[in-house]
This record gives sequence, structure tokens and C-alpha cells, in this order.
Amino acid sequence: MTQTPLAPPSGSRDFLPDNMRHRLALLARIRDVFERHGFAPMETPAFERLEVLAGKYGAEGDKLIFKILKRGEKAASGEADMALRYDLTVPAVRFYAHRRNELPRIFKRYQMGPVWRADRPGRGRFREFLQCDVDIFGSASPLADIECLLALAAALTEVGLPDFTIRLNSRRVLHAMMTAYGVAEADHGSALVALDKLDKISIDGVRAELSERGIAAEALCEDIARDNFDKLLRNKLDSEAGRDGLAEIDSIRDGVAAGLPAGAIRFDPLLARGLDYYTGAIYEFISDGIGSSIAGGGRYDDLAGMFLKDSVPICGGSLGIERILMLVEERMAAPTPTLAYVTVWDADTAADSLALAARLRETGLAAEIDLTGAKLGRQFRTADDRGCRFALVRGPEEREAGLVTVKDLNSGDQQQVALDAVASHLRSALCHS
Amino acid sequence: MTQTPLAPPSGSRDFLPDNMRHRLALLARIRDVFERHGFAPMETPAFERLEVLAGKYGAEGDKLIFKILKRGEKAASGEADMALRYDLTVPAVRFYAHRRNELPRIFKRYQMGPVWRADRPGRGRFREFLQCDVDIFGSASPLADIECLLALAAALTEVGLPDFTIRLNSRRVLHAMMTAYGVAEADHGSALVALDKLDKISIDGVRAELSERGIAAEALCEDIARDNFDKLLRNKLDSEAGRDGLAEIDSIRDGVAAGLPAGAIRFDPLLARGLDYYTGAIYEFISDGIGSSIAGGGRYDDLAGMFLKDSVPICGGSLGIERILMLVEERMAAPTPTLAYVTVWDADTAADSLALAARLRETGLAAEIDLTGAKLGRQFRTADDRGCRFALVRGPEEREAGLVTVKDLNSGDQQQVALDAVASHLRSALCHS
Repeated sequence: MTQTPLAPPSGSRDFLPDNMRHRLALLARIRDVFERHGFAPMETPAFERLEVLAGKYGAEGDKLIFKILKRGEKAASGEADMALRYDLTVPAVRFYAHRRNELPRIFKRYQMGPVWRADRPGRGRFREFLQCDVDIFGSASPLADIECLLALAAALTEVGLPDFTIRLNSRRVLHAMMTAYGVAEADHGSALVALDKLDKISIDGVRAELSERGIAAEALCEDIARDNFDKLLRNKLDSEAGRDGLAEIDSIRDGVAAGLPAGAIRFDPLLARGLDYYTGAIYEFISDGIGSSIAGGGRYDDLAGMFLKDSVPICGGSLGIERILMLVEERMAAPTPTLAYVTVWDADTAADSLALAARLRETGLAAEIDLTGAKLGRQFRTADDRGCRFALVRGPEEREAGLVTVKDLNSGDQQQVALDAVASHLRSALCHS
Repeated sequence: MTQTPLAPPSGSRDFLPDNMRHRLALLARIRDVFERHGFAPMETPAFERLEVLAGKYGAEGDKLIFKILKRGEKAASGEADMALRYDLTVPAVRFYAHRRNELPRIFKRYQMGPVWRADRPGRGRFREFLQCDVDIFGSASPLADIECLLALAAALTEVGLPDFTIRLNSRRVLHAMMTAYGVAEADHGSALVALDKLDKISIDGVRAELSERGIAAEALCEDIARDNFDKLLRNKLDSEAGRDGLAEIDSIRDGVAAGLPAGAIRFDPLLARGLDYYTGAIYEFISDGIGSSIAGGGRYDDLAGMFLKDSVPICGGSLGIERILMLVEERMAAPTPTLAYVTVWDADTAADSLALAARLRETGLAAEIDLTGAKLGRQFRTADDRGCRFALVRGPEEREAGLVTVKDLNSGDQQQVALDAVASHLRSALCHS
């Protein structure tokens, strides 16, 4: 038989049990937070019709979509008719458009699941990775933006990352700002792309990029380079759009700030966020410790137009869940494997061992039974290797006396306990250690 | 904008919140049972290199594999280099072969996840569906088979399907049986295919099919048609392989029977199970109510040879999880949506409503806030429509008095409660209803 490479495909991962337990525990806690905030779970398939995804992510995004070959006789054509989902947002909007009549008028959803992108794999960048979104369909109220921000903030706090700063801005403020500084409306999109790089290339880089793009915005660049640009800008924005945008920002900031430590959320007029489908408030959560983005989102009221004739206000955000998993995993306690290892004395008493394991499992305790058939000392070592806290022996002697020998593998203590009392003995030993 | 079809691709499904909550609750309970039985979670990617899957599922299976087109410049070739997983077993064996050194010598794993098959979609048959497996790698002991059977049985009992009968057989007994009845070894595989159809086409159909296949087995067919074929067969199996096979079956049956109602597991010498990778014990769980298979599995000691040079004993089974979900969903209570609907009196008091929702969420209660901006009576109706049990009002009057008006939407009762006491009031109202 030919030897096949055993690693998973480039950019994808296998997860070992410890890692899986960490991920599952974290996702369960986040799920719980979202439920507590009144978000409901939903799911779409891993794949969509190609036309549902094509053209939704720009030319660069389109190239990164994994396409699925037609089946049967049509396979020979080499054509694709379906594709793996590239994010959770576009399929969720397709879902909402399709099931709208069965959903509440204001629909709060959360979803956690893998997406696939044929990106060049790298450190912390995968071709299969989890996304974790909350969205509210059907409400234009700033309260909806606030609820999404609060749910994301609560999830981060719940998983042990309470130290973040939220940068808040609005596409409306960005446009008003550029108009105020004399950038022609046709150039707003192009100027945004340059501004979005400010953190990476500094103001001189932005200046160069703007001039490359043929956009004159020297006054803007000068002001950006000063302190307190946000206050400077407030005075400059005397258009209606600008004042509306600022009022929206302030209302969202105040609503969110009430539930967070002082200074955790601030207006940042230079936050642009790459995705061009945003129409209103936009935000990013920066982890104070690592200084990088761990969540973000915004309002995208026009996206439903991809699938519906009428417009639906939508806002939502996303946890950078893979990054969060990496940050948190290092700090989390080791996951709990099986508690009790039930040894097997010999083939004749295996039934007693099975009965003992069943008894523990019925009370909700995790137990496994020896499958090595090795000698007892070796079984103890196996139990220890597998991370079990207790090894239990029910040999002929114990059976005769109606007892079980319980060995605590942490302390080495060993004692005999009545068969009926084993479960409660283990529970109480756990509580007192 | 052109109108795209809004339904998910043929054979795949969108899941609405109620449905998702059912599925998640059920999977969590099954996960818990598997953990209690000492099985550990693991995961592999949705896709594998094409060569990992190709040729593993027979000619028919190969046609049903969803293939993924090459990316970038190679896309034009129309060739595929990866494929969506067709089951969880082959990728798990690939995973085990790859990570063996990091895994315990005897590795007990469970996995729940979607698989994809380009089957013709039909009632209850999907192109994306969940599988739910337990397997034990590295143990040839019948105790390993017993542990898998017990975990599957406990999972079915846990989700409310305790009425099943397990049909148990062994590939070794099947081969010994055919030898005993004079079927040439070269014909065993072909005869098995015919025998496997006994339930569907009855003994006359099997007779016809055997003769079509040029296999003379009239004595076998005559005995099958009699009562108590299993006892008849026991007397006929005087070969060593036959006696070994029977002893293995008896040992597994006795080990499993001890934990189940009388008669829940029986030897069925005619159970064949389609998959030809089985080498030892095989079994199927038949739901007594609906008379069809809801779980099954067996021992497949040679499958690791696909990826490893040495042989590894493996046994495992699978819950028919999609069927189980359908059976159980009808009986399960409606899932619990959000508990409390916090109304918003007006824009000026929205902050009070946000603070009230935050207070409830901090104590672990699920709360959502009104986003409609409608009048209060309308907000109450929205709360009811969304399945919330309570609607809370914190208007200017309540604020003045430090109170919250709590309306129980089930009973219509309304009372005023101190702000500090709202959470405990809701909890106690829940306990007394």
C-alpha cells in the first residue's frame, strides 16, 4: 500500500483531546453569554451555491473561496457549482432573507462555526478557522449596536480577557470628516483605504499613499498629526451628517460605557475598518495586553440588498475567536479528564469492574475501565498516565467483603470503601483537595 | 441586482433557533455520556487531501465524495486536490496514525461533526449530516467492544430512547458459519452481500440472489428458515474459528447484558452489516418503537493498515444521530428562550433599562432589551411573541421610587419589586410555577 502523508491539509488542524476540551469549554461559556444577552443560535450549511458567495468579498476575496467540483457526469467539466462558506455573515443574510417569515421582526442571532479561506497559511492564520458572530437584523436603533457591543464585551470578560479598549467610530463621521477636509466624495473610498493603514505606516506613510492615489488632503493629515484630533474634528463637523454621526457615536459610547470600566470605550475618528459594507457605527476591541484587535464589528444596513429588494438594518460583531482561544488557552487550567480508573483483576472479575464503572457513571462521575489486561501495578501507572485521579480495585478479596479499594493517585493514599459508598467517597475526596 | 435562490443547496439545511437549541441540548447530553465513559474529544478538518479519502469507500462511495477544486492558477485545470470528509472514521484513523506518539497507547475517542456525501437527497437523507462516533484504538480486548456498546446504550438511554434491542454477531462467526455450510471461502464476501438483504427480501429472495451469484447454500437457507437458527448454528460450529467467535460473542453479550434490561442484547447469526472493513464483533441497535436501526458498529482491526505499516486493533460504533434527533425532537419540551424582556420607556431612560438588563445578566439570567421603540403595550406583545416569560418596566415613576414593574406574561400578574430584588424575584417566580 502506498504511503499517504498523514498530516492534515496545509492550513488546517487536527485537535488533540486536551486542546479540544479547552476549545469546547471556552465556546460553551461564550454561548452562555450570548444566550444571556438574548441572542439565539442558528446555523447554515458548510457550503453554499457558488453564486451566493461569488462577488461578495471583492476580487481578492473571490480568489480565496474554496470551490466544490460538480458531481457525476458533470465532474469531467472541471466546473464548480458550490463553495465552502468564506464567512458567517453572507450565509446568515441569505438565511435571514429565506426564513424571514418564520423569524421575529427583530432577529438577534449568534453563530459559531468554521469558515474556509484559501489564504496562504502562516503563524496563527489558518485555512479552516472558527468565526463567532452576534448580529441583530431589523433594528436601526443605536440600542442594537449597544447590545452587540455589550455581548462581545461580556464574552471577553467571561473568558478572562476583561482588559480591552473599544475604539468606536462611524462611517458617517468618516465621510463627513473627509467632506469637511475637502476630499471629493468620489475619493472617499480610496482615501479610507489609505487612512486604514495609519497604525501600520504612520501619518507620513498615509500622506504618501494619499498623494499616490491623487488625493489632496494635506489639512487632514496635518490635523491628524496633532494631539486630540477627535476634539479638533468635533469642532470642524458642522454638517448635518457630521452632527448626526457624532450624536450616534456618543449615544452608543454612553450606553456601552455604563457597563464597563472607565475609559474602556472611546471615539476614534481614524478607525476605518477594511470591509466596505459598513454603513454606520464601526468598532474594534483592542486587547490592552497584546495591543491587537480581538473583536470588531459595525452596522451594515445595505448588505441585505444582496438577497432582498427591501433594505433591512443589520448590525453585528465578531470575536477574533481563534486568537482568543490561543490567548486564553495558555492561562486556563488543564481540562479534567476521566476521574476514576477501574482496574480489572482478571477475566473472571471483569464483570464486577464493569458493574463498578456503571455505578459511578450513573451518578454522573466519569470512569473508565482497564483495557490493557496488564498486571495491577502497571494498571495503576496507566491510570496515572491517563490523568485519572483515582484507581479502583475490585478483586476477589474486595468482592468477598463487599468493598472496593480506592487508591488516590495524587496522594498515594489507599483505603477500602463499601461498594455502595464509592461514589460519595470520591466526591468528598474531590471537595477536600 | 439579480435574484439568487435563497434556499440552502439541495440536501443541506438551515437551522432555525428552536431547532438549533434542541440539537445543541441533545449533543451536549450525549457528549456528557461519552465523557463519563472515559472517551476523549478530538477533531479533524472538514476536508482531507483527496488521496486520503479516495479508494476507501468502494466505487459507489468514491462517486459520492465532494471534491474541492485546486486554487489560484491551477483552478483552470478543473482538477481537485482535496475533498470533504465522507465519514469520521477514515480521517480519525489518519489522525491516529499521525499523532500516535502524543496519544495514550489505548486511545478512546468520541467525535461529533458533519460529514458530506453527494447522495441523492430524500426524506431524512441529507448531503450534509452529523455523525457521532465512539472508537477505541489499540485494544483487542472484548472489554473494548463492551465499553463502546455501553457508551452507545447509555447515550440512547440518556436522550430518552431506552427501548432498543441490540443484535450482536461477529464476522468470524459469519465466516465459520459459511464454511460449516460448505460455502467456498472465495464466495464468503459475495454470500454476505446476499445474506445482508434477508430483512428486506426474505429468505426466498436471498435464495434467488445466492443462486444468481452461483453460490450453492441450500442447507444454510433451509436452516435459516427454521426457528432458533442461532441454537442450531451453535451445534454446527465445531471449528476452532467458530468456537472462538462464539466465545467472543458470548463474552461481549454477557458484559453488556449486565447493565441493560433483560433481553436487550441477543446473538443474531444473520446480522452482516454492509461495510466490508469489519473483522470481529459487529452490532446494531434497533429501536423497539420504530423497528429501525439507530446505532451500530463493530471491530475493524485492519483499517489502520491504510495509513500504518503495523496493525492496530480498533473497534467503535456510531449513533444514527440525525435519526435520533428527529425521533427525540418531537418529544422534547420547547427550548427555553430569553427569560426577561426589559422594556424601554423612552430615549431618556434607555440607560436605566440597559443597566437593569446588565444586572440580570450578571446573575446568570437571560435578558433582552426592547429594540422596537414602540409603545409599552406593543413592547409587551413583542415580549410575549418572543417567548419571554417576564416583561420589566423601569419608567420615570419606577426610577423615582427605586422600583421595577414586573409583569408575568403567563399569568398577567403585575407587581412592583425593588431594583435590588428583581433577579431573586424572577428566580423565585420560576421555581413556584
